[in-house]
Amino acid sequence: MTDASTLPATMRASVLLKQESLTIEDRVVPAPGADEVLVKVAAVGVCGSDVHYYREGRIGDFIVDAPLVLGHELSGTIAAVGVDVDPARIGERVAVEPQRPCRLCRECRAGRYNLCWKMEFYATPPIDGAFCGYVTIQAEFAHVIPDSVSFEAGALLEPLSVAIASIRKAQIVPGSSILIAGAGPIGIITAQTARAFGASEIIVSDLVPAKRERALKFGATRVIDPVADDPASLNLDVNAFIDASGSARAVDSGIRSVRPAGTVVLVGLGNSEMVLPVSHIQNLEITVTGIFRYVDTWPTAIHLVASGQVDLDALVTGKFDLAHVAEALDSDRDENSLKSIVYPN
Amino acid sequence: MTDASTLPATMRASVLLKQESLTIEDRVVPAPGADEVLVKVAAVGVCGSDVHYYREGRIGDFIVDAPLVLGHELSGTIAAVGVDVDPARIGERVAVEPQRPCRLCRECRAGRYNLCWKMEFYATPPIDGAFCGYVTIQAEFAHVIPDSVSFEAGALLEPLSVAIASIRKAQIVPGSSILIAGAGPIGIITAQTARAFGASEIIVSDLVPAKRERALKFGATRVIDPVADDPASLNLDVNAFIDASGSARAVDSGIRSVRPAGTVVLVGLGNSEMVLPVSHIQNLEITVTGIFRYVDTWPTAIHLVASGQVDLDALVTGKFDLAHVAEALDSDRDENSLKSIVYPN
Amino acid sequence: MTDASTLPATMRASVLLKQESLTIEDRVVPAPGADEVLVKVAAVGVCGSDVHYYREGRIGDFIVDAPLVLGHELSGTIAAVGVDVDPARIGERVAVEPQRPCRLCRECRAGRYNLCWKMEFYATPPIDGAFCGYVTIQAEFAHVIPDSVSFEAGALLEPLSVAIASIRKAQIVPGSSILIAGAGPIGIITAQTARAFGASEIIVSDLVPAKRERALKFGATRVIDPVADDPASLNLDVNAFIDASGSARAVDSGIRSVRPAGTVVLVGLGNSEMVLPVSHIQNLEITVTGIFRYVDTWPTAIHLVASGQVDLDALVTGKFDLAHVAEALDSDRDENSLKSIVYPN
Amino acid sequence: MTDASTLPATMRASVLLKQESLTIEDRVVPAPGADEVLVKVAAVGVCGSDVHYYREGRIGDFIVDAPLVLGHELSGTIAAVGVDVDPARIGERVAVEPQRPCRLCRECRAGRYNLCWKMEFYATPPIDGAFCGYVTIQAEFAHVIPDSVSFEAGALLEPLSVAIASIRKAQIVPGSSILIAGAGPIGIITAQTARAFGASEIIVSDLVPAKRERALKFGATRVIDPVADDPASLNLDVNAFIDASGSARAVDSGIRSVRPAGTVVLVGLGNSEMVLPVSHIQNLEITVTGIFRYVDTWPTAIHLVASGQVDLDALVTGKFDLAHVAEALDSDRDENSLKSIVYPN
Repeated sequence: MTDASTLPATMRASVLLKQESLTIEDRVVPAPGADEVLVKVAAVGVCGSDVHYYREGRIGDFIVDAPLVLGHELSGTIAAVGVDVDPARIGERVAVEPQRPCRLCRECRAGRYNLCWKMEFYATPPIDGAFCGYVTIQAEFAHVIPDSVSFEAGALLEPLSVAIASIRKAQIVPGSSILIAGAGPIGIITAQTARAFGASEIIVSDLVPAKRERALKFGATRVIDPVADDPASLNLDVNAFIDASGSARAVDSGIRSVRPAGTVVLVGLGNSEMVLPVSHIQNLEITVTGIFRYVDTWPTAIHLVASGQVDLDALVTGKFDLAHVAEALDSDRDENSLKSIVYPN
Repeated sequence: MTDASTLPATMRASVLLKQESLTIEDRVVPAPGADEVLVKVAAVGVCGSDVHYYREGRIGDFIVDAPLVLGHELSGTIAAVGVDVDPARIGERVAVEPQRPCRLCRECRAGRYNLCWKMEFYATPPIDGAFCGYVTIQAEFAHVIPDSVSFEAGALLEPLSVAIASIRKAQIVPGSSILIAGAGPIGIITAQTARAFGASEIIVSDLVPAKRERALKFGATRVIDPVADDPASLNLDVNAFIDASGSARAVDSGIRSVRPAGTVVLVGLGNSEMVLPVSHIQNLEITVTGIFRYVDTWPTAIHLVASGQVDLDALVTGKFDLAHVAEALDSDRDENSLKSIVYPN
Repeated sequence: MTDASTLPATMRASVLLKQESLTIEDRVVPAPGADEVLVKVAAVGVCGSDVHYYREGRIGDFIVDAPLVLGHELSGTIAAVGVDVDPARIGERVAVEPQRPCRLCRECRAGRYNLCWKMEFYATPPIDGAFCGYVTIQAEFAHVIPDSVSFEAGALLEPLSVAIASIRKAQIVPGSSILIAGAGPIGIITAQTARAFGASEIIVSDLVPAKRERALKFGATRVIDPVADDPASLNLDVNAFIDASGSARAVDSGIRSVRPAGTVVLVGLGNSEMVLPVSHIQNLEITVTGIFRYVDTWPTAIHLVASGQVDLDALVTGKFDLAHVAEALDSDRDENSLKSIVYPN
Repeated sequence: MTDASTLPATMRASVLLKQESLTIEDRVVPAPGADEVLVKVAAVGVCGSDVHYYREGRIGDFIVDAPLVLGHELSGTIAAVGVDVDPARIGERVAVEPQRPCRLCRECRAGRYNLCWKMEFYATPPIDGAFCGYVTIQAEFAHVIPDSVSFEAGALLEPLSVAIASIRKAQIVPGSSILIAGAGPIGIITAQTARAFGASEIIVSDLVPAKRERALKFGATRVIDPVADDPASLNLDVNAFIDASGSARAVDSGIRSVRPAGTVVLVGLGNSEMVLPVSHIQNLEITVTGIFRYVDTWPTAIHLVASGQVDLDALVTGKFDLAHVAEALDSDRDENSLKSIVYPN
């Protein structure tokens, strides 16, 4: 590690002890590995998965059975570097891609490092996240952000990466039409991303009128109340459908809305099993897939924000310090809340 | 039309009047359109969809509400040609690709003519099929077969085309591993096709021991009894899964058997809706799709048969004349039956 | 043909008799085929290939050995329709995709109709073009344009289609970097199209300072004088290079400017043979290809113009009537000229 | 390192001191890094690049300015493993993929590790190769070979990998047609690989009658004397052309032999610049590319050999010990020689 002289020995961390039980601890500032950097955390976005771990104590097979630091959407400043990393990087403003693939397994070698067999992902048991003063990450995953990108936007490059991965899978190109179910944070960012990728028709469905209104400000060219107008009945003939709702009904309707040879990408997390219209998928040769995190999205994300094509700052509706992480996690109870940011330092 | 001088004025046809009611009629021999050829039918394979129309009077939204000639797997000899077709083609032994796309719609222009908005497909109401003396088809869909390919094999190029379309979608290349559910005619042909495309591991599951045995003779490198050994529990880690069973249980197990970024192709016709393991699809970024007929498969199919890589003649287990179409349609009641052929002339 | 009652019997046409010899003729207004529409021509762009036929009397193997009407970039209004076309289309403002593929050959069936074996393309011997009152075209190639798209822009959807085909081949996506050689009409439209497809870095090289200046107004983020700064020496590391110059030197430099696994698309027409850096192509696994017209580009082109992402009206620097086609063809002798439009009616 | 107890301290190595000057040295047996294995070398194939370094002292910018061990086609037995590698691997018979990518750079992360910015490749200055007793390699690049694959075939999986990479780029699938220029070792292995990938027409051109004869034994369905019959004049209409000759004339003819939208892969090493038919490439939208080594080819290669689809043992025409490396390198002077093997231990 280089230039650790000015670093504090300890940092504060917000620790989830168990379901709905958070505490603040003093912890030793970690030392970066040879190929890593140490990042002083500036801003951390609150994600639905953080909320899920907080409220349920688990997501699927991932169980919080030991203290865990939440938070995986983050930006900060490089405070120190490992021995194999250029010390000139110290001081860089960076957005962190919060995953540590093994680089060796079949998936890593194939360029699909998101599917790494030994992935260590932030804020996923037993790997700690970023609601704390400092974190380490592999140097190539600390992506420099220009001054025009705020720390808040830098943190939100993570959900933007989810949207980019989805839009890529959906094969959106200039002139494409797309239906997006769900106008929560991912839906809203996906709509903006679809616009940046050139989609000419961006239809967003949501049950809540206020959310539909909001979608129109962030790229939607049309909004649908799926109760009043089932998309499947509207003959939308879209090139792609992205589900950002997790609703089985929305998924079924969405699949029935795409054109022959169209694409469906399931992003929202809902029930682990769903009834899907298999004959329809067959008869129209529709492709249904999902995304699991992202590969090589930060450079694109930084470009979209720096060029003004995607606005992440406008999504921030709440700001919290480390003592108020519980409030940040609960802010989704307010319908007007979209994205909360935690500032650990 | 050219050279119709030697043609008879009428032909015999086996006509499905309604559910389970077949008759033989004398019909006028059709005249080929300007861009068509007239084919004297030599051999017609019996397909599960023919059986379905015969027994149920419908498949999904396609209802037999007027007399219908069944049969869409066929070979024959060109007996006459339309005015825009080279008369030298008369006398050619051909396999018929039994579809008439419009050539004009968005899907046709994109090279996906199987998804044509105005498709006329043999033996699909209200379009007649091939259990009759003569049929017409667009000239480019009458594919010349070499002498080494029998008329029976020529007819069965149609189910081989289904298999080729499936294997292409499954992205099988030399060294790939594949799981195939169902060892009926399509499963058996798909296994042979997977071998021809270079798959190194071809696992076939079927409930029936005799069918598993048969699969081993036609390309399977391993067979599984899905009751005794649920594929999902065997950690098969295959590149692709093709369902040729239509069984919801097989589909679920198959999806759970593919590796990250793997592919699932649903070919078998089962319930129009099925419960699918959506979280698993998302977490492994599996692609699920289906096929609807085929595009540009006959040349490949002819090569696979002519080169001996796929054996279609060995699949024929019953032969019938036009007076015994009902028996041909019912031959699937015998477990040892695989493919029946009808000879209309 | 429908509703021809109000049509004139004859029209005026500008006819190229031989090299540099144009005349005006009265010709019979053509009747649309069953699947065609008759378009009253509103505006026709002048293309470099028109100029080439005019000055040289040939392009490669295509020789003007009989009178030929030039012009293949056009818009107009549907004046009549063939018997198989919906008469409601009469009166539509349309941009014409000036090609008549056979729809039957191997390439057409594969969705690559631009490579049709029997293509009839406007203003390519012996097929007449659009410097005349009326033309016919297959109905699906008369693309409706909204009122917000002028007839001039409608005509220039043709060179925009060339740019779209190029940018697609170059695989430009948001965040891509691209080098474009040549700031003539195609280079300028390609730069705009690259921007619309999301390219973050759009570098244009041209020998002429005024053309470089112009490129900066139409999407270029950086311009290069290739004499002062050989792109190959600048370590541009771009994702793609598109040549719109036809210069062998520019092609060589461009190929040496792309990154490993990058793409090179040759659009400009220069010498039929060129010296290429083969070892470099091998060592970096660069892909080199070209485009030949376009497939399915008009819908995208219309979207790009209607949404304001590509400005075609601003490219028009000269307007001419049918009596001044020679002047229109010679307008490229003025360095400030970019695009000339001919109004046949 | 594990279990080094039985290893010798030193090994013999054939060292190229400078152009045409080889010597035998005693060298220290290298210790595997943490993620590496130590391989006791069994068999090493002689490649044209070894011959080139021996005779010319350089290949392009790679100059032998310090002693260099040649040889990069190799098999052997794992003799020891690094601390992060499972010791159970000791004793495995393996084929070595002779490259050490950095795993961190942009190309590595994208799955294109052959284009790694910091690649260390065997027998490429300053990295030593395998004409010696022991070598180290990253554990994932020591590929287990079954007993049915000889050590000689194990070594020749390297040129087979070149062929697989080429055939993949050429997009060969069952039914494809291909022209291969050059019936040397790479051409012969490529013909076999094309057959294994399902090509129905495999045309090989070579100036030497004996080589053409040989090609017919290894997969060619037709051979051409390019002097008597220029391929470009034969209207071959092949899907793909692979150049394994390095001849500019062969490359030009080959490009003119592919069908519209076809593919050209340049594998042979010839002049660094060549005159290519650019207009032809444009008019037919042909794709021209090259390969640089290989990615993820050994598993496929092992399958092709173990299944008997590719015969590598039959290519071996000479066997040499370490004292006769010069003779092995000169064996290509005999027209009947195809592949020489060196046994370092």
